[in-house]
Amino acid sequence: MATPEQIRATVETYVASFGERRDDYVACFTTDGTVEDPVGTPVRTGHADISAFWDETHGLSDATRLEITGPVRVAGNEAAFPMRAVVTLGGSDMVLPIIDVMTFDDDAKITAMRAFWDFADLAPRES
Amino acid sequence: MATPEQIRATVETYVASFGERRDDYVACFTTDGTVEDPVGTPVRTGHADISAFWDETHGLSDATRLEITGPVRVAGNEAAFPMRAVVTLGGSDMVLPIIDVMTFDDDAKITAMRAFWDFADLAPRES
Repeated sequence: MATPEQIRATVETYVASFGERRDDYVACFTTDGTVEDPVGTPVRTGHADISAFWDETHGLSDATRLEITGPVRVAGNEAAFPMRAVVTLGGSDMVLPIIDVMTFDDDAKITAMRAFWDFADLAPRES
Repeated sequence: MATPEQIRATVETYVASFGERRDDYVACFTTDGTVEDPVGTPVRTGHADISAFWDETHGLSDATRLEITGPVRVAGNEAAFPMRAVVTLGGSDMVLPIIDVMTFDDDAKITAMRAFWDFADLAPRES
């Protein structure tokens, strides 16, 4: 089983790469890793689908990056952490609170990611 | 499906009742609701088991209460939120960061709860 330190390192890379480094982001997942974003929508499976997901997400804004907003909670080979997306649209920033829940393999690659958020919570950035 | 407002109301009752009101806490769950706390440990099922879980948790400290530390993220009939347990032991307070992930029925009762935390993250209270 991956250690909490390894899992936290993957989460850091995942969050840091989402903004501008698609390949580094996708490489956080196992080759058959899954993405359910947001929870309740169809699951994407594998690097090609996750890469397409990244493209779609970034196509909706001028820029989107992620910021962790609290400690990463690790439990066994799973983890959950609070964050927010900072979405730049027409020169202004909006923020969307998200919690990601992930399962990891023995090398701390992500085997499954589920993202909890609701567009209704998108709000102008205050800080 | 329960509305986000109904789900948030259940979460508020759940968090507020955990400290001292066991029956109100247990009543947040469906009669066959489940608790996996922490993630990776055996699942408890039903009100009697959840009531026993509450007793066990409170037996480990002089007092334990929960505080939400960020927005509740609702996605369909599921939700995740960041919080912390404030654990009073021998007159001093310790805090433990937790993320709870829940599924709700049409009446916004909890059908499943999974809690992400690690005792290694227990720390003296700073604020």
